[in-house]
Amino acid sequence: MKSYIEYSPNSDFPIENLPYGVFTSPKNTDKHIGVAIGEWILDLNVISHLFNGPLLKDKQHVFKEEKLNSFIGLTKPHWLEARSTIQSLLDVSNSTLQNDTNLRERKHIPIGYHGRCSSIVVSGTPIYRPYGQTLPVDGADPHFGPCRLMDFELEMACFVGGPPTSVGQRVTAKEAEDKLFGFVLMNDWSARDIQKWEYVPLGPFTAKNLGTSISPWIVTIEALRPYIVDNYPQDKPPFPYLRHDDNFNFDIKLEVDLRPESSPVATTICRSNYRFLYWTVKQQLAQQTVTGCSLRPADLLGSGTISGDTSDSYGSMLELSWKGTKPLRLLNGEERKFLQDGDTIILRGYCLDENGIRIGFGSCEGKLLPAIPFQE
Amino acid sequence: MKSYIEYSPNSDFPIENLPYGVFTSPKNTDKHIGVAIGEWILDLNVISHLFNGPLLKDKQHVFKEEKLNSFIGLTKPHWLEARSTIQSLLDVSNSTLQNDTNLRERKHIPIGYHGRCSSIVVSGTPIYRPYGQTLPVDGADPHFGPCRLMDFELEMACFVGGPPTSVGQRVTAKEAEDKLFGFVLMNDWSARDIQKWEYVPLGPFTAKNLGTSISPWIVTIEALRPYIVDNYPQDKPPFPYLRHDDNFNFDIKLEVDLRPESSPVATTICRSNYRFLYWTVKQQLAQQTVTGCSLRPADLLGSGTISGDTSDSYGSMLELSWKGTKPLRLLNGEERKFLQDGDTIILRGYCLDENGIRIGFGSCEGKLLPAIPFQE
Ligand SMILES: [Ca+2]
Ligand SMILES: [Ca+2]
Ligand SMILES: [Mg+2]
Ligand SMILES: [Mg+2]
Ligand code: NI
Repeated sequence: MKSYIEYSPNSDFPIENLPYGVFTSPKNTDKHIGVAIGEWILDLNVISHLFNGPLLKDKQHVFKEEKLNSFIGLTKPHWLEARSTIQSLLDVSNSTLQNDTNLRERKHIPIGYHGRCSSIVVSGTPIYRPYGQTLPVDGADPHFGPCRLMDFELEMACFVGGPPTSVGQRVTAKEAEDKLFGFVLMNDWSARDIQKWEYVPLGPFTAKNLGTSISPWIVTIEALRPYIVDNYPQDKPPFPYLRHDDNFNFDIKLEVDLRPESSPVATTICRSNYRFLYWTVKQQLAQQTVTGCSLRPADLLGSGTISGDTSDSYGSMLELSWKGTKPLRLLNGEERKFLQDGDTIILRGYCLDENGIRIGFGSCEGKLLPAIPFQE
Repeated sequence: MKSYIEYSPNSDFPIENLPYGVFTSPKNTDKHIGVAIGEWILDLNVISHLFNGPLLKDKQHVFKEEKLNSFIGLTKPHWLEARSTIQSLLDVSNSTLQNDTNLRERKHIPIGYHGRCSSIVVSGTPIYRPYGQTLPVDGADPHFGPCRLMDFELEMACFVGGPPTSVGQRVTAKEAEDKLFGFVLMNDWSARDIQKWEYVPLGPFTAKNLGTSISPWIVTIEALRPYIVDNYPQDKPPFPYLRHDDNFNFDIKLEVDLRPESSPVATTICRSNYRFLYWTVKQQLAQQTVTGCSLRPADLLGSGTISGDTSDSYGSMLELSWKGTKPLRLLNGEERKFLQDGDTIILRGYCLDENGIRIGFGSCEGKLLPAIPFQE
């Protein structure tokens, strides 16, 4: 497969990838659905009439919408037809778009995809150090002030797709595949001192609702399929609802950079891999729905922190600095136990095969800004 | 204030109430926005052109939508103008609608309002007893099967309104009022044995995502204002972000009925009151946003279980039966520690003043159906 669009071999977005996103451009502030290809975005809104396959020819309107929800809410056969239509339109042998310079003139700024949860934000959105309640001294009174132990969490997240399910309907691990649309990178920012004071007995609340960053392009399961690897070995056979026979783990290389305010140089502080997750995403979906929780297209499932076995593969400062006991040294000589104001955290993810084809996720960036002072 | 619409003095929906909901009718399956008045629904879609006040005359389209989100996303002055327009249109002295028999012929079925969370369901939706993992014997292996300790929780929930806030923006208790649109009854169904096994350390998950029922009509803060009572006395002065000087607690009488499958007779198993809540909803909103979590119109804040001090005012079976040690006796002679298949739980809520004006919430009902067998 070769596209007439030129891109570097290091691009995250070759013709084999084709991740979905929502974007605007300086000339057109309308939100359009597109797929990334090299440094370009193919605007699916303006070519919606070219989706002429048997399944999509009556559904072209989904590409005219401002959100991906309707497209994601179709079925897996629709997603496959869209993928093959787009691959064909971008192929070097196809002249339909190749000679249409109008279509190729556009240059765009991705603005990404918003989930349902109010504080899910797209890569590039800054995050403020939060104020909150903490318990600095066990048994003493709680304290209110800026978080002192600010952290990131390296995660990926999966968008649910397909028709909505109803309340009471389980989706077992064996049935999960048709409900999984694609993945993004996710930074589950966490205020550790606030978390420690609030999490018993109902779990983290304000420690993690201050903002969750995701990368702007949804990489589909189809693009990731060539990188499937063995599932992580499980200590015990899981209950039947969690069992599936096929491999559904992915060799996605993950990296986290920290770029301090004082320096243009970022330090890679973590090298991990999606494959280190104990549960597959099919099992995670089965767990989410085991008691009958219904699903809607574009529900977002976070993976949990993705840490490997080695000390450079831990997916949070909490683990990397051994709860603050072993500071990390950055390339510019500074040290970090937790995040400082002005630090930018950059998550990257990509798959590579033996032929050098790279299926990437772009990046998920966020800068930590100083706390907004609380005025009584 | 008196309406030309006739209704019983026991109606939950007098002209002083005017709760908002979304409905369809047998003749028209389109979703329309309406307000309940007595046994009727005033269709705001068909009278949108009558919202001619200075704020709403350019916003009439919000009443043409299928969801309340756009209307709720306007500001408090818009909500007040809508209320006074509707009160005037329904007043006995106003002939605009009174003589239009077309408008009064309609008879409707409320279908209620859907929040963003996939498994929030409207009153009347049955709930299935879930399957899940439990730990029947400490230290032994977990078990997978139908929940044995199924419970309800008597709660209310508040819909957030007003323009969305951005990530990092706190809303203090003093600033919260403009962000609170109105209340519904809520049953936070809970699988206690599943909850006990899963809730450490990240809180309840599948034990509470199996379905959350809400009543179909949103009763506005304005309708509830005459029933404001003293805030619940707080043991310690809260942190400044949680302080507000005004009273913002409500005398809302709450009742829970249990109707077993074997009998048409329901037993009132709990009499509680919204005023027993320790924190005001302004304080709850301030807590939700203290670390900078953004708000969107129609975000839904659950109150937590509303239990009084006396043993007949506890808002769950767990408390009413003292963790299953003291069974409740129903009017038909049956006993209950937790819920049985076929039990219907009915929440009701209403305010009453000395003149007998009743502002009610209707009811929030749900029947517990037997577990759907798990076929491997
Ligand atoms: Ca999380
Ligand atoms: Ca709950
Ligand atoms: Mg996490
Ligand atoms: Mg609850
Ligand atoms: Ni457009």
